[in-house]
Amino acid sequence: MKIAIIHGPNLNFLGIREPEIYGSQTLETINSILEDYGKEKNLDLTFFQSNSEGAVIDFIQKCHRDRVEGIVINPAAYTHYSYAIHDALKSVDIPAVEVHLSNINTREDFRKESVTASACIGQIAGFGSQSYLLGLEALLMTR
Amino acid sequence: MKIAIIHGPNLNFLGIREPEIYGSQTLETINSILEDYGKEKNLDLTFFQSNSEGAVIDFIQKCHRDRVEGIVINPAAYTHYSYAIHDALKSVDIPAVEVHLSNINTREDFRKESVTASACIGQIAGFGSQSYLLGLEALLMTR
Amino acid sequence: MKIAIIHGPNLNFLGIREPEIYGSQTLETINSILEDYGKEKNLDLTFFQSNSEGAVIDFIQKCHRDRVEGIVINPAAYTHYSYAIHDALKSVDIPAVEVHLSNINTREDFRKESVTASACIGQIAGFGSQSYLLGLEALLMTR
Amino acid sequence: MKIAIIHGPNLNFLGIREPEIYGSQTLETINSILEDYGKEKNLDLTFFQSNSEGAVIDFIQKCHRDRVEGIVINPAAYTHYSYAIHDALKSVDIPAVEVHLSNINTREDFRKESVTASACIGQIAGFGSQSYLLGLEALLMTR
Amino acid sequence: MKIAIIHGPNLNFLGIREPEIYGSQTLETINSILEDYGKEKNLDLTFFQSNSEGAVIDFIQKCHRDRVEGIVINPAAYTHYSYAIHDALKSVDIPAVEVHLSNINTREDFRKESVTASACIGQIAGFGSQSYLLGLEALLMTR
Amino acid sequence: MKIAIIHGPNLNFLGIREPEIYGSQTLETINSILEDYGKEKNLDLTFFQSNSEGAVIDFIQKCHRDRVEGIVINPAAYTHYSYAIHDALKSVDIPAVEVHLSNINTREDFRKESVTASACIGQIAGFGSQSYLLGLEALLMTR
Amino acid sequence: MKIAIIHGPNLNFLGIREPEIYGSQTLETINSILEDYGKEKNLDLTFFQSNSEGAVIDFIQKCHRDRVEGIVINPAAYTHYSYAIHDALKSVDIPAVEVHLSNINTREDFRKESVTASACIGQIAGFGSQSYLLGLEALLMTR
Amino acid sequence: MKIAIIHGPNLNFLGIREPEIYGSQTLETINSILEDYGKEKNLDLTFFQSNSEGAVIDFIQKCHRDRVEGIVINPAAYTHYSYAIHDALKSVDIPAVEVHLSNINTREDFRKESVTASACIGQIAGFGSQSYLLGLEALLMTR
Amino acid sequence: MKIAIIHGPNLNFLGIREPEIYGSQTLETINSILEDYGKEKNLDLTFFQSNSEGAVIDFIQKCHRDRVEGIVINPAAYTHYSYAIHDALKSVDIPAVEVHLSNINTREDFRKESVTASACIGQIAGFGSQSYLLGLEALLMTR
Amino acid sequence: MKIAIIHGPNLNFLGIREPEIYGSQTLETINSILEDYGKEKNLDLTFFQSNSEGAVIDFIQKCHRDRVEGIVINPAAYTHYSYAIHDALKSVDIPAVEVHLSNINTREDFRKESVTASACIGQIAGFGSQSYLLGLEALLMTR
Amino acid sequence: MKIAIIHGPNLNFLGIREPEIYGSQTLETINSILEDYGKEKNLDLTFFQSNSEGAVIDFIQKCHRDRVEGIVINPAAYTHYSYAIHDALKSVDIPAVEVHLSNINTREDFRKESVTASACIGQIAGFGSQSYLLGLEALLMTR
Amino acid sequence: MKIAIIHGPNLNFLGIREPEIYGSQTLETINSILEDYGKEKNLDLTFFQSNSEGAVIDFIQKCHRDRVEGIVINPAAYTHYSYAIHDALKSVDIPAVEVHLSNINTREDFRKESVTASACIGQIAGFGSQSYLLGLEALLMTR
Repeated sequence: MKIAIIHGPNLNFLGIREPEIYGSQTLETINSILEDYGKEKNLDLTFFQSNSEGAVIDFIQKCHRDRVEGIVINPAAYTHYSYAIHDALKSVDIPAVEVHLSNINTREDFRKESVTASACIGQIAGFGSQSYLLGLEALLMTR
Repeated sequence: MKIAIIHGPNLNFLGIREPEIYGSQTLETINSILEDYGKEKNLDLTFFQSNSEGAVIDFIQKCHRDRVEGIVINPAAYTHYSYAIHDALKSVDIPAVEVHLSNINTREDFRKESVTASACIGQIAGFGSQSYLLGLEALLMTR
Repeated sequence: MKIAIIHGPNLNFLGIREPEIYGSQTLETINSILEDYGKEKNLDLTFFQSNSEGAVIDFIQKCHRDRVEGIVINPAAYTHYSYAIHDALKSVDIPAVEVHLSNINTREDFRKESVTASACIGQIAGFGSQSYLLGLEALLMTR
Repeated sequence: MKIAIIHGPNLNFLGIREPEIYGSQTLETINSILEDYGKEKNLDLTFFQSNSEGAVIDFIQKCHRDRVEGIVINPAAYTHYSYAIHDALKSVDIPAVEVHLSNINTREDFRKESVTASACIGQIAGFGSQSYLLGLEALLMTR
Repeated sequence: MKIAIIHGPNLNFLGIREPEIYGSQTLETINSILEDYGKEKNLDLTFFQSNSEGAVIDFIQKCHRDRVEGIVINPAAYTHYSYAIHDALKSVDIPAVEVHLSNINTREDFRKESVTASACIGQIAGFGSQSYLLGLEALLMTR
Repeated sequence: MKIAIIHGPNLNFLGIREPEIYGSQTLETINSILEDYGKEKNLDLTFFQSNSEGAVIDFIQKCHRDRVEGIVINPAAYTHYSYAIHDALKSVDIPAVEVHLSNINTREDFRKESVTASACIGQIAGFGSQSYLLGLEALLMTR
Repeated sequence: MKIAIIHGPNLNFLGIREPEIYGSQTLETINSILEDYGKEKNLDLTFFQSNSEGAVIDFIQKCHRDRVEGIVINPAAYTHYSYAIHDALKSVDIPAVEVHLSNINTREDFRKESVTASACIGQIAGFGSQSYLLGLEALLMTR
Repeated sequence: MKIAIIHGPNLNFLGIREPEIYGSQTLETINSILEDYGKEKNLDLTFFQSNSEGAVIDFIQKCHRDRVEGIVINPAAYTHYSYAIHDALKSVDIPAVEVHLSNINTREDFRKESVTASACIGQIAGFGSQSYLLGLEALLMTR
Repeated sequence: MKIAIIHGPNLNFLGIREPEIYGSQTLETINSILEDYGKEKNLDLTFFQSNSEGAVIDFIQKCHRDRVEGIVINPAAYTHYSYAIHDALKSVDIPAVEVHLSNINTREDFRKESVTASACIGQIAGFGSQSYLLGLEALLMTR
Repeated sequence: MKIAIIHGPNLNFLGIREPEIYGSQTLETINSILEDYGKEKNLDLTFFQSNSEGAVIDFIQKCHRDRVEGIVINPAAYTHYSYAIHDALKSVDIPAVEVHLSNINTREDFRKESVTASACIGQIAGFGSQSYLLGLEALLMTR
Repeated sequence: MKIAIIHGPNLNFLGIREPEIYGSQTLETINSILEDYGKEKNLDLTFFQSNSEGAVIDFIQKCHRDRVEGIVINPAAYTHYSYAIHDALKSVDIPAVEVHLSNINTREDFRKESVTASACIGQIAGFGSQSYLLGLEALLMTR
Repeated sequence: MKIAIIHGPNLNFLGIREPEIYGSQTLETINSILEDYGKEKNLDLTFFQSNSEGAVIDFIQKCHRDRVEGIVINPAAYTHYSYAIHDALKSVDIPAVEVHLSNINTREDFRKESVTASACIGQIAGFGSQSYLLGLEALLMTR
């Protein structure tokens, strides 16, 4: 099963960025944990990070062309206003799971609304880097 | 590890209740799948369902007295207005995960707001009965 | 035809409660008027009153098990926030009519919104205890 | 007892207009059912339909001059913004019942608010053409 | 003078529940302080706590039957949405004082609105367990 | 100086309509007082009343063709939503004064907003039938 | 192809009405341009203007009876609140295009919302009298 | 008849202050016009201007002690937020008329709401300094 | 213990001002009751009333310089918008109790919000002049 | 005449993307239809599509440098939040027409607001790929 | 160049007032730093502080009479509701710069809105007492 | 001291773009003024402009890697919705000052809210290109 892991803006600064909220793990560590898990489950994982909304959309479209079968996406700040990413996820017909490191319900008001989640099959938030692992499992469970 | 599974109002009518949204599995089936998973992982699971907000709070308090170490809760409709359940989860110091069968972001507006999620460590929504399994895993992963 | 009459919170205090708004009839009087009407029309009526949201839901579920064919419900204050009763009415597949003694459009702002009416086939408000009789007729007419 | 039945805008297109919402009965059929019912109950019924807000107000004022004793009114779309019809109903001192064919709580948001209902003794919605019959009965019951 | 002290949801967890907000006194201690004060002032005090909205309403109705002459009520989380408790307080004609341990104006936004206070003669908030004593005094002073 | 007095919907029911709010004077009495005042000041007054929004607009356009030099208008309920009357007043280039019998600031919320006043030179409200006289004077003073 | 052109309130004052916004062309000029275009394209055009909401609805219903195949409508001020015209357009099953002379997005806030556009196949705004021509073309292109 | 004319903040800068909105007349000119009018009508006028909310309230209270029989007040910017002046006008039992130089409906949004007008018998706005004269007349007419 | 009693705008008109809401006691009577109570409890009380927001702030700052140990303040209308008084109470580090004569929850909407209460330790409302006595007690109890 | 056609995010997925909303035509087909039309009318057309907001702005600026005389832009999802594209269209002084394939008034709430339309001369929505053709014509007609 | 420095309410308590937000510098220190800077730049500085809104307005008007050429104003809490100060700044034609010690964007919601800034040429916030120095420079730079 | 100057979207069109709002200086001129100032103060300045949100974030991250010690950023239109730039500024621990050419408080409503300012130490707006110079000074003063 071919799965894409998409990291939105500023996630490449994990470890540097407000560690009291986002933890001290770097994105590389998270990716390598997912890599290990993917090998165990026989998944073909691709990783992508970008700070650019357009590049995220380009990559989602590429997933369609590459016949990716599932997406785990953390749209980060774009979660709260990128109707363009919402539309991209709808455009391609690939089951997607939205994940967040922190519990978006306990932070600033603007983080409570997700405009992208309604284009996904579900949402997982609050478990740090484990949110990604759970997202992968959710894809496996529901396919 | 001692874990309580709490089902909110109308979840005992799963299978009967709007199956096009909630699926055709009954609550008994879901509980027995969780039971199996619990055995495998050596978890001590307790199940509780009630249509009464007060009874849900009583049970959360009982979890405290019974030294329960984790809660997976689907507050169902109470998710959207029960500040009393929110306060109950805050009162006891047990890590809780909020789960939902359906993707609450794709339904009526009132289902988009959760007043209970900010009293939990995280939220998982949209994966049918698998949301419960993922909730259990999330508790295991983050303890 | 088997019909359940459900009275929500504080309706057992009719006659005592703000008579300038709710009139001086007691709930017993209302029920016996309905009883008489039911006999005349050959209806099998069950009456239920509770101050507890959970008990109202339990009873709605019981209606399903008892093969009740119609519900006349006055959710009283729960009308304005009980998404749980809304979900209960949706869960069971029984035609329901929401009734109110007073004209909820001429009172406090919070009474103008009904979160339960959208789970019913229709709503009747403002005719005192006659609202119940009209609710029964509405059920008979539309079945 | 002299009663006026007032049909607001577009109701003369019943049967033509979105039959999946409003049913396939024409306004003539509805009026003749009411006519029959009126004869049975010895009521003197007058029927009026107009697409014009001003004409509806003129007719309500005429009801006052003609000593009409009760009004059953379906203000249709004017329900949601015609403060002028609201004021007209208040101006004449005739008990009025607002009726709607469909359950206005299950449709577009703008249909949830009635600015005219607070000038009536009560409101009945959701029972198709039966809403009119129930409105007539409500007038008889509460006089 | 016969007075009822009503404690809403989660107040039985005082001492356990977020002590940085609610202090370390248990409900038993608070009740026994009130008891002492009552004896001194020759008051006949009854104490009631419940996590259930319905049970709180049942007890308020019981106060009416028991000819209670004053109520001191801390509706806790129900303060913010229980129109049913509001209606119950209005139904019985007993002067009631709403009390809160913490200053609800300095906490989450949802705690700023009280839907029950308008059914009371007044409100006292922010003085920890002393809010109850002040509530009792307020009842004595204004009768 | 040629001046038109325009009375909006339901004003022909003055004296009948809620006299506790609108007083017991009929529209005829008001018009004849204005008539007398007009004679004294050598004004050429035309009177118009209609319950129809369209007819009010037609008349405003007629004022333009008849070279009317000033308008005193009480749009009554249309004040609060008739953008069409607003546009009509803007279309013709005649100074207009909006008048109201009652103080619209002390009544229902919807009466606080005027969508027509911004198409007038000013607004006078709260002085019963004298509001019209003051409106006439205002036109004389500011021309 | 039989097409009706409907002009809403105050459009008969084009040329007189605020020419800096609406231009100096009269409605007659616009209609004769459309007439010419219609002849060229072999269209059977009918023109209608009214200041009355009810008359606009009556005419829309007449279109249905006259088997009109397309409507180009500029509801003018009614665009922003006439749910009755919205319902009329829905009632008849004729493709309609909403047109506006000015760009409603650059004017007062109330002009930004159209309650009628959702009953049309599309909307064209901002091109002066050319909006009507484009509306006609749109009807031809999409039939 | 003893009448007080109260000018709120910045009105002493008339003539200096934004003359395109407020005209070039100074406050002294306006007061002397009112003085002349008062003499003609045999009124005993007192004038007061202050930039201070507290001083305005003090003066309103002084009016009560001085047995003033009518107040014409232009609360200027305080119109939009001074609940304290609202309460002052309510405290003394003197009929008051609120006046404004400009048409507050055609300016910034915040100027559309008056929190003081509901403590007055009526409001006159948009006629420049003539608004004061009309206010005086309104007092004479309605006493 | 040195305590300041601060009365906001219009409270010097108690007895005159709307007695159906505020009672017939004058401020002098209230102050002398507090004086008596203060003597009994050995408190050093200072009284202050002003209609001026600035003077209230000046006095709060004077309390700091005079080493006042507690403040009982009824900000009256300033309660609802004076962020400046809020900041003054925060600036000085003296425990303050906000009191109100009437139950602000049963009156106009604007009276429901207090912008000053969050700068106090607590709030007491609805007990007429007794609210001040309870405020004093609250200060004694919580110091 | 030199005209640029700008397609916003996800429009390169036309034919793939939700065909029940957007139709089955690909962007290439649409462009070639426009190409043909352009040749016929002797227009010099340039086509541009990007998923990136920044790239859209870069291209709009390029239009300025290339002396483009008209823009037809479908900003797709950026319509609803890209103030940056709004500013770009304002920065260059080229007449622009905003077009949409679907009728944005009949879809999700967020699609009803356009933040870019106020920087265009007009807006055309709802005619599928014909919206582009109409946009081109609108540019020709109004230059 | 003659410049006035205006400090709003509670700023005379700098050093005392919440030093974690406002720093430990007193107003005297700030003024003397500005004084030094003024000497260096050959500016004629006047300082003013008041807790009274009216006094601030009086002083702004005095600036006009004294031919002050620039104003640096920190309206403190009045920033958020004093339309009267807004109007005063507009009345006098002196360039003004609004300054704040703290970053008002990172504090309570009510501090995010400035009703006075739109009457100034610009706003500087967040640099502690340096905000005043920057305000002075801004005046010099832009004159 | 190493400082980065970041210009957001459309700022490269200064001089071209709406000169009545933004002035006629080009970005090059502004940068060279800053360059001169930087030399004088011995600052190491880097300049960056992009229309792309992602590129702005990339550059902010580069600042972190390049050990930049201060940022002056004009996020232009992104100010009002780019939570991603907000997060980027928070991620890197570099003091930033937000600057704007125009006074954002006197323009369209959407320009009044800054979602990026709360990630900066302060904000400077309204002084044309001088806002940048003041931003540089602010950085120097507060380090």
